[in-house]
Amino acid sequence: MNTGEWIEPSSGVTDTPGFLAGACGCDIRGNNNHARLDLALLAATHPCTAAGVFTTNTMAAAPVRLGRNQLATVDQFRAVVVNSGNANACTGEQGMVDAHAMREMAAEALGCRPEQVVVCSTGRIGRALPMAKIAPGIATVANALGDSEAHGLAAADAILTSDTRRKVATFRIQTSSGPVTVAGMAKGAGMIEPNMATMLAFLTTDADVTNGDLRAALQAGVKGTFNALTVDGDMSTNDTVLLLANGVSGIKLSPNEAADWKLFLDAVEQVCHKLAQKIVGDGEKISKVVEIRIEKAATEEEAVRAARAIGNSLLVKTSWYGGDPNWGRVLDAVGYSGAVTSEQQVALYYASEGSDEKTAAFVGGMVHDENLAAWRSIVAERRFRLIVELGSGTASTRLWATDLSEGYVNFNKSE
Amino acid sequence: MNTGEWIEPSSGVTDTPGFLAGACGCDIRGNNNHARLDLALLAATHPCTAAGVFTTNTMAAAPVRLGRNQLATVDQFRAVVVNSGNANACTGEQGMVDAHAMREMAAEALGCRPEQVVVCSTGRIGRALPMAKIAPGIATVANALGDSEAHGLAAADAILTSDTRRKVATFRIQTSSGPVTVAGMAKGAGMIEPNMATMLAFLTTDADVTNGDLRAALQAGVKGTFNALTVDGDMSTNDTVLLLANGVSGIKLSPNEAADWKLFLDAVEQVCHKLAQKIVGDGEKISKVVEIRIEKAATEEEAVRAARAIGNSLLVKTSWYGGDPNWGRVLDAVGYSGAVTSEQQVALYYASEGSDEKTAAFVGGMVHDENLAAWRSIVAERRFRLIVELGSGTASTRLWATDLSEGYVNFNKSE
Repeated sequence: MNTGEWIEPSSGVTDTPGFLAGACGCDIRGNNNHARLDLALLAATHPCTAAGVFTTNTMAAAPVRLGRNQLATVDQFRAVVVNSGNANACTGEQGMVDAHAMREMAAEALGCRPEQVVVCSTGRIGRALPMAKIAPGIATVANALGDSEAHGLAAADAILTSDTRRKVATFRIQTSSGPVTVAGMAKGAGMIEPNMATMLAFLTTDADVTNGDLRAALQAGVKGTFNALTVDGDMSTNDTVLLLANGVSGIKLSPNEAADWKLFLDAVEQVCHKLAQKIVGDGEKISKVVEIRIEKAATEEEAVRAARAIGNSLLVKTSWYGGDPNWGRVLDAVGYSGAVTSEQQVALYYASEGSDEKTAAFVGGMVHDENLAAWRSIVAERRFRLIVELGSGTASTRLWATDLSEGYVNFNKSE
Repeated sequence: MNTGEWIEPSSGVTDTPGFLAGACGCDIRGNNNHARLDLALLAATHPCTAAGVFTTNTMAAAPVRLGRNQLATVDQFRAVVVNSGNANACTGEQGMVDAHAMREMAAEALGCRPEQVVVCSTGRIGRALPMAKIAPGIATVANALGDSEAHGLAAADAILTSDTRRKVATFRIQTSSGPVTVAGMAKGAGMIEPNMATMLAFLTTDADVTNGDLRAALQAGVKGTFNALTVDGDMSTNDTVLLLANGVSGIKLSPNEAADWKLFLDAVEQVCHKLAQKIVGDGEKISKVVEIRIEKAATEEEAVRAARAIGNSLLVKTSWYGGDPNWGRVLDAVGYSGAVTSEQQVALYYASEGSDEKTAAFVGGMVHDENLAAWRSIVAERRFRLIVELGSGTASTRLWATDLSEGYVNFNKSE
């Protein structure tokens, strides 16, 4: 089955028919740099259904609390307004006042109702938004929306913070009724941890999907992608993934039409996966991305725990940075993760990215020193796989983790 | 009430009457450095009761598994044999054979039964012990035991790995029947996390205490000390704290004599606290030790979760390293810890070490920017306090955490 194709190069959200975007620089960071884009607007030509996944952090930022409530209670959406440079988190009552104000300004400029606009913010925690700068910015962007490549990429650039690269992806499927597009843009790159991250991602589709079905599709798409990353183990206050469906294709998709629905689910997951990989690959000052596969676990929850213990271990991460295939530190992390296994049951292999050829490092209570040269060459690659079998069941999981460099410490020692 | 006094300078375990110690260099690291002490023997002139606390890591090293079993089944102990440079962890069946052999060699040299000797190892994971070097070393040390300061300090030096300083402490109490000593030696310094660490600690006392009462005393002493440290969040395969009581003072202590027992509990906790502080203060390449106090938590478990989330957050630790009082990252960590609180309930203060004068940073949903200069000067200190009130109950906890430096990454990127 031909599941669809990537549209290259991607323009991000505007690759989907019926979506407009734009961006401008408002100097939200307050360093007199108006050339840096920091405000983006995404608008639909037609009313949309929408689905959202938000951080579970109890210190969730004002826009997250507002948006979570909106997604649960509103049926039709028209736009998303996003600023970078300021997270509007830990900003007290003023934070919620400002999030409401951003929503109202965008709604007025676009001619829709405030509750049809979702607000997102990312950046520094604990400072009030510079609303005097944001207000004229929203009006400016609303007057200059478009669906060109330049418009899509400007929006994708405006949401970035410590990212070094823009992150966009577009996938098109051929349903039995015609083509449907799923496109997206995202930002990383620190505070990246499973169950979300300092991550914003916005997906658009021209399929006609109910709110409930769209929610199911997004949750399925996020699980093994955005929720399976770790850079530094810190889950942020602002993580948000949104999916808007404007129905402009005229193609209704639902689980009732199983074959087309499967294509759509796959398209959402593919775009989530590609954006998630761009996020982890652009982690702050990283030099490696490691795919941790936990297999033969007693339960999926234990598999996830083992994967996170490995992926968040400073000793493991620094050894990756050094290119030192230190399997002992990996076993130590598995040992304190709480997953059921033992020195005799556990098995640890290394593999090149995309390769199923496993090189044994530790199996049956024995280290395989004869393979040392082979591991070293795998661990020297920029991307590789670490496969850990716990030997206590049939559950499995995957997690993408990064190394930890001196550059990360230097980068984050002050803001 | 005068609870006792510190004996300064401490010689460690041999400060307690009736304990002998010694050490030698066996080149266990295999780098032809016989001058570096790496094998220590601690022996009692009389049979001892003993208590132990061990790592909960499921990859626990062979000596830990052996020792845990011994402490649960044997009533009388005579000695402890310890090597550094090799953890005898993840070493398969050979590891257990070697741990048994070390026990037997020490027992033969000392003229006691093998099950009366506890074995501990610390160092690199996954390599077989060089038994051909260890065997003659044990015989050599057993023939040169003594109770002098030099003997005690040689043993304290021989157990060190990446530590930069020896760690010893001695406390003496005056019971209603006369003086009782509690003395100890310990090693850190990486893989330090609550519920133990790559930490070994050996305490001796000349009190006469039953095995059951000694166990209660050690568990109480470890809880807020050795189990309340974090350097890098990695719990090791080898953590062990042992307390031996030889009864040489002739003074029986038990909970039945409440006043004397309280003095003894306090002495054990004081020595644990001093050794634990020496461990965290000697964390690998650290520049700061931060006492995290969580207060007004719904439960103690939630308090501990919040403290660990803060103390293990890379973003928090790097900001301490940079001397940047980033309260936003602290609130973010509290937010994903799972502890019940909210932006309105939470309050965050900084204080100098040992000072009860709190400087408000974030209270009632508001940042106190007017105190910024005051926080900055507190966070610039080598040791300071971070006090976080969750506003959801009355439980509290303390955790000592370190910063994270570029030096840590560099130090651990290869072995």
